[in-house]
Amino acid sequence: MSESEVLAYLDAHQQEHVEQVRRFVRQPSISADGTGITAMADLVASRIRAIGGAAEIIPTEGHPVVWGRLDAGAPKTLLFYGMYDVQPVEGETWTVPPFDGEIVDMPTHGRSMVARGVFNSKGPMAGFFNVLGAYRALGGKPPVNIVFMIEGEEELGSRHLPQFVESHRDRLRADAAYFAFYGQDPRGVSNIYLGTKGIVFLEFICRGGAWGGPEKRMIHGSNAVWIGSPTWRLLQALASMMGRDEQILIEGFYDEVADLDADEEHLLERLTEVWNERETLAAHDVRRFKFEGRGESLLRNYLTLPTLNIDGIVSGWIGPGSKTVLPNEARARVDMRLVPSMDIERILGRLRRHLDGQGYADIQIEVWQTYPWARTKWKSTVVQAMVAAIKSQGIEPYAWPTLAGSAPMYLFSTVLGMPFVMGGLGHGGRAHSPDEYATIEGMRLFERSVAAFLERLAAS
Amino acid sequence: MSESEVLAYLDAHQQEHVEQVRRFVRQPSISADGTGITAMADLVASRIRAIGGAAEIIPTEGHPVVWGRLDAGAPKTLLFYGMYDVQPVEGETWTVPPFDGEIVDMPTHGRSMVARGVFNSKGPMAGFFNVLGAYRALGGKPPVNIVFMIEGEEELGSRHLPQFVESHRDRLRADAAYFAFYGQDPRGVSNIYLGTKGIVFLEFICRGGAWGGPEKRMIHGSNAVWIGSPTWRLLQALASMMGRDEQILIEGFYDEVADLDADEEHLLERLTEVWNERETLAAHDVRRFKFEGRGESLLRNYLTLPTLNIDGIVSGWIGPGSKTVLPNEARARVDMRLVPSMDIERILGRLRRHLDGQGYADIQIEVWQTYPWARTKWKSTVVQAMVAAIKSQGIEPYAWPTLAGSAPMYLFSTVLGMPFVMGGLGHGGRAHSPDEYATIEGMRLFERSVAAFLERLAAS
Repeated sequence: MSESEVLAYLDAHQQEHVEQVRRFVRQPSISADGTGITAMADLVASRIRAIGGAAEIIPTEGHPVVWGRLDAGAPKTLLFYGMYDVQPVEGETWTVPPFDGEIVDMPTHGRSMVARGVFNSKGPMAGFFNVLGAYRALGGKPPVNIVFMIEGEEELGSRHLPQFVESHRDRLRADAAYFAFYGQDPRGVSNIYLGTKGIVFLEFICRGGAWGGPEKRMIHGSNAVWIGSPTWRLLQALASMMGRDEQILIEGFYDEVADLDADEEHLLERLTEVWNERETLAAHDVRRFKFEGRGESLLRNYLTLPTLNIDGIVSGWIGPGSKTVLPNEARARVDMRLVPSMDIERILGRLRRHLDGQGYADIQIEVWQTYPWARTKWKSTVVQAMVAAIKSQGIEPYAWPTLAGSAPMYLFSTVLGMPFVMGGLGHGGRAHSPDEYATIEGMRLFERSVAAFLERLAAS
Repeated sequence: MSESEVLAYLDAHQQEHVEQVRRFVRQPSISADGTGITAMADLVASRIRAIGGAAEIIPTEGHPVVWGRLDAGAPKTLLFYGMYDVQPVEGETWTVPPFDGEIVDMPTHGRSMVARGVFNSKGPMAGFFNVLGAYRALGGKPPVNIVFMIEGEEELGSRHLPQFVESHRDRLRADAAYFAFYGQDPRGVSNIYLGTKGIVFLEFICRGGAWGGPEKRMIHGSNAVWIGSPTWRLLQALASMMGRDEQILIEGFYDEVADLDADEEHLLERLTEVWNERETLAAHDVRRFKFEGRGESLLRNYLTLPTLNIDGIVSGWIGPGSKTVLPNEARARVDMRLVPSMDIERILGRLRRHLDGQGYADIQIEVWQTYPWARTKWKSTVVQAMVAAIKSQGIEPYAWPTLAGSAPMYLFSTVLGMPFVMGGLGHGGRAHSPDEYATIEGMRLFERSVAAFLERLAAS
């Protein structure tokens, strides 16, 4: 069948396809506490079967991976990497129930589904399945073979995915990898992504010990007159790592930070033409960036800087009432985002040396998860197929050398040695936040861009 | 009847008197969330009536005050100030249920009741009632009239007590005030207290705003590459207040800190003879003090230094799993303990100026509660009566010019203009901590010391 038949089918069946997205978001699947994980894996596997593929739910030491294959008898194979888990919603204030899939008329975005996971990343995954389903409904097959690898621990840092990839290399053979993503901003500007930052997620733990401080329990706060505080100690240790100018003060932290290459410099130049500061700020309800400067200088920071972010900190009594205690423990969770060519072990070594050097050898570092940064080349076939696909929809795509976020794309670029691309048309936002959303019109555009992408990948 | 008859009665009825303590600790009365407050106020009022007094439960804007009077037709009147509320137990790990009043054989302390409030301060209050009950059981009356003022918000900073005192001055007329306290350390050394530090309990709140940072919700942690963090901001603001040498860096913070007077210097000298560093450390399971130096130098710090303690801090995601977020808010609860002659308003002004001067004008300070420091003179009648009472039990008392802790004793010394004393024999520990305890033998000694105190106060 022709590409235009497929596109027409997608447009004609949009309502039904939106319902497929809703089916996915209505099934909670919170990897942090395991809620709904099994049911969601089943749902994904049965959807793969429904569109003509084979699927298996393969156990790992954590949540299982849904693996599948849709053989189209085509010369090329695309590895679809997806995630069926979502972030928790606990403690968040939503304007609609987060797992209902309600469609709301949003002030600036128009008709949108508001639900946990609709943007990150059940909406795009469901859309990808819808496209494959369209080929089947039209009595054909997609133009490339598809291998599916859909994990349930992306939001836990893909803990067991590296092991899965190592053990199933033969089942993951493909020419390129794809991570589906609604890549348009609120104005419709289309973005695709050629890389991800690495991540080191860790917890600092400071307890009373040889240095002083209560060791076994919180004690009466008035003892602070002569007994040291693990809370102050952790605060001072953390403060020693971050300058008020937002420079990270860990010695050597920036030493391996690489410049952009020539292609990436060109991409940055193009991004500068369309990227809109105010819109980025508005999307996050933020009034200003933390750096002075505008346009290219901000974008260059975004693309090239590593970060040291506090995700959570807790110590002492935070319940109701004014309990005056001297805490025996303070904890802070931190994520570091790494850029080429930073090395995880080297950075962890520098962090430990920083603490030791500042006199905080007692402060524990518990590493929860890590994975390296990843980059794919602008000129690779899969990237160029996506660029051409988006252009075919009358839209000019802008390629980002990297996301600021992290995903284990190094498994493709480094471990499996294949190029990858992340993107597609469509718009959504508020990942990891209340009122995560994706527009209904964006869902339609996304499916069109995926069909066009598969066609161009097959032809390239 | 004679003092020795009363003492003999107390010894003979100890088991029954311990049961009275248990009745009190078995009734939870957590002012922070209101649990059991009404039932506890009833219990206290009915106990006052049972020992021959009149009692009223007088509403305030918060938890009620139990007021009472036991008229002995005596020339002197003692104002008994007590508290019927306790600290929360949520989040604490106890070895026995905290509201059962179990008696446990503790390794170093011997037979002890382990329960929330048994030390702070239901045990001493119940013991005081037991002594008054003994006079009644013996067919007599206590040697002084007693006025009772027992509040249910001590652990909330006695929020409504000042207003109560102002409105009921006529019902609070007395010659002196008394706060009952198990004042012996684990070796049996007897301590009484002539003062309390003042307290300022407040919360710092840092949110995204004009300076940057997310304003409405937590956002994806990868945005930390270009968006500021309220968590880092609060940490840096806090760190700017506290040197690594434990000196508070708020300009002028120490300006009004007074030296000890001549009597207090003498008391310090005597304390140095008996105070045991290792024991204080062991009581709190702490290995070292935060200051170098020993003996007198540590004690002088304890008596004369104000503090800035972090009671609780929270920001971001602290639940299960590794949620990578850039928080939109960070909060820290802090208590400052004030010594003579620091002034609450002046200190709050300096704190605000410090934050403003450091560029943190946006950080909110929410004052939850304050009250001033209080001191009573060593030579006052009520103090000397307590000293003589303890000596009469064959024990040498040591008087501390102040506790490091806070209690609204200024209501007596400053507002009502009467001297006060805090103390008595007996031993307990772990106030505001799991496994709060008081020894059974200490309960007996406490009651004896109270009877001797009332007799000597009447005679003085």
